[in-house]
Amino acid sequence: MTDSADAPPPPRSANVAPPSVPVVGMVGGGQLARMTSQAAIGLGVGFRVLAGSAAESAAQVSAGTWLGDYRSLADLRDFAAGCDVLTFDHEHVPGPHLAALEQDSVQVRPGAAALRFTQDKLEMRERLTGLGAACPRFAPVRAIAEVEEFAAGSWPVVLKAVSGGYDGKGVWVCDSAADAADVLAHGAVLAGEVGLIAEEYVAFDRELAVLAARSPHRQGAVYPVMQTVQRDGICREVIAPAPGLAPGRAAQAQELALRIAAELGVTGLLAVEMFETPAGLLVNELAMRLHNCGHWTIEGARTSQFEQHLRAVLDLPLGSPALAAPVAVMANVLGGDDEDVYDRYIHVMAADPAVKVHMYGKPVRPGRKIGHVTVTGDANHRDPAELADRARRAASYLRWGKEHGE
Amino acid sequence: MTDSADAPPPPRSANVAPPSVPVVGMVGGGQLARMTSQAAIGLGVGFRVLAGSAAESAAQVSAGTWLGDYRSLADLRDFAAGCDVLTFDHEHVPGPHLAALEQDSVQVRPGAAALRFTQDKLEMRERLTGLGAACPRFAPVRAIAEVEEFAAGSWPVVLKAVSGGYDGKGVWVCDSAADAADVLAHGAVLAGEVGLIAEEYVAFDRELAVLAARSPHRQGAVYPVMQTVQRDGICREVIAPAPGLAPGRAAQAQELALRIAAELGVTGLLAVEMFETPAGLLVNELAMRLHNCGHWTIEGARTSQFEQHLRAVLDLPLGSPALAAPVAVMANVLGGDDEDVYDRYIHVMAADPAVKVHMYGKPVRPGRKIGHVTVTGDANHRDPAELADRARRAASYLRWGKEHGE
Repeated sequence: MTDSADAPPPPRSANVAPPSVPVVGMVGGGQLARMTSQAAIGLGVGFRVLAGSAAESAAQVSAGTWLGDYRSLADLRDFAAGCDVLTFDHEHVPGPHLAALEQDSVQVRPGAAALRFTQDKLEMRERLTGLGAACPRFAPVRAIAEVEEFAAGSWPVVLKAVSGGYDGKGVWVCDSAADAADVLAHGAVLAGEVGLIAEEYVAFDRELAVLAARSPHRQGAVYPVMQTVQRDGICREVIAPAPGLAPGRAAQAQELALRIAAELGVTGLLAVEMFETPAGLLVNELAMRLHNCGHWTIEGARTSQFEQHLRAVLDLPLGSPALAAPVAVMANVLGGDDEDVYDRYIHVMAADPAVKVHMYGKPVRPGRKIGHVTVTGDANHRDPAELADRARRAASYLRWGKEHGE
Repeated sequence: MTDSADAPPPPRSANVAPPSVPVVGMVGGGQLARMTSQAAIGLGVGFRVLAGSAAESAAQVSAGTWLGDYRSLADLRDFAAGCDVLTFDHEHVPGPHLAALEQDSVQVRPGAAALRFTQDKLEMRERLTGLGAACPRFAPVRAIAEVEEFAAGSWPVVLKAVSGGYDGKGVWVCDSAADAADVLAHGAVLAGEVGLIAEEYVAFDRELAVLAARSPHRQGAVYPVMQTVQRDGICREVIAPAPGLAPGRAAQAQELALRIAAELGVTGLLAVEMFETPAGLLVNELAMRLHNCGHWTIEGARTSQFEQHLRAVLDLPLGSPALAAPVAVMANVLGGDDEDVYDRYIHVMAADPAVKVHMYGKPVRPGRKIGHVTVTGDANHRDPAELADRARRAASYLRWGKEHGE
């Protein structure tokens, strides 16, 4: 319904920041950058996004959009020249580029030395094990015999690309040696472009996540432990704090996240995804950035993850990670068959005037994350199951329309 | 994983809104538009700002900035052509322009018929009186004899410009007939360009404000009654809900605001400023827009006033106006002598990790509103005086630096 073809593009140099405030440059124009832009507006700091196109989620809304390719060192250098701090909404910037930027004295946060643990799963596993953090059993594998030896007759086994992946995937759950052989037979693996590790398939009770922040001054802050629900590799629902989690285990999870952040030298946010098992906690994945598991903090915590990340990379004192509500539930909105999501706002908002809708401005494709909703509790409504039901219902309406509740 | 690394969608000419969402155009590029842009990003609706320059508060941050003059009907028409709904961050668009836009079938919200009550104080007073809403005693005045007759020996008397004002002022508290004569002697008054009304000077106990929203479908929603503190004509502090307000009086104030919104045909927000006196409530001023008194709703209510205004002008179901915390206090940050506000963030944030800082990106000038801070309570901290002290301290640090606490 809009056409800004005849709108003068705002001048690039003049409108990003008022005088005397630093400019944070975020590489990547997805929804994480989009929501960070909201936090930057509130803090009154400058904010720029390096996006691949003006149609990307953050580029649609941020006056500080630069177009460029994060795989190009020249583009990264041009972008960084106008920023005081460089940070990221994804982890795909090539490590050598990060190192080159640091050699240029760009403030890269998190830095290349920390980010490589998110770009190399074998290094990550070895480092975590060295720290005494419990992980699923793992081993690098090159041949099917090594996978079979790792499995020792007990399937499934998880194969993961050490870095990147192929065909859009980086994780394969293999129910048999034949499945594993299919993964190993891919050209990229055979050519040595994609290294693999095998990991024990963990029969977890549930998945938990912890989000911590750390600043260059080494201040740390950690949010309450969350319960996450993933389906088909996509985060579907987060409940904070994790219902019924033993206080001792919650403290252990938070301490672990703060320790990993400190030991790995993270600046900004660190998300630690964990499995809760009868034997205790196992670290599943690390991410050094804003994370889907923390979207509930916009309404549910004193400081949103987006504001916290900005404070951390700017080396400002961190904000309080305390709960602002007794419980918060976030549900992701996935694209369905019908593109006209706006047409369904009326139903969602009429049905539940307190649900918070966050949409990302992304074209609808089936199964794609296009937004999220959050429901927070209060003194009279603190049952996570009730709140989760409201959040799921709203997300489902936005996906399918009222005739197609999931 | 973010979707930032997905194959980019085909380039589009428009970068303001994704397909199939309406575009709200806001006339005025001040901090109210700036904070509305944050809410529009969350809702995933299109948002444009008509600003006078790229340096204005909202223009700095919003990708949907158009440059133009709100006093020019041609500029307004150009701007409106790209928007589905037109709304405002101030009340200064000339009434005849609003009427002309409506004749063009532009959706102007609030409409010209409602906005004229904010542009003509005499019409406003007469209409409110007609509705039975108690107001300070008033009379139109042209000559000093009429002011003296109105005063009947009891000073001070308040003179107000019916519309606009001069020398940047529209309200004069006159302690004597001589003071009033000075106001009347101004060229603009003598020339008949500025009409005046005299109003009783109200010795109030305190000032209250109520913020209501109303949609074209005639749905209404009202926030809890607030206590406001003004100094030198500038809002300095807001406490919500108003401490110690009798429940019956709170209900009366809320009903009054909803009734005024309905009777005057407001779409969007209506702020009603009131005096609380021993004899009851008197209506002081009306504003049909986002309002400084409602900034606390960003953290303190389920739906911020900015989201609520967007929902109202888009004719979406209104959001819950319920408190998200037992009490919230907002303090405005005024410019001081030192321009380097950012240098003081570290003190404010280190001293109080839970205070929420909102800065507007405006050049610092002494006495000018350049931001606000909000502190919200919780189950253990619900004393408005304690929260107000924290908010005042943070605002004062941002104004003066730590050596110059007010």
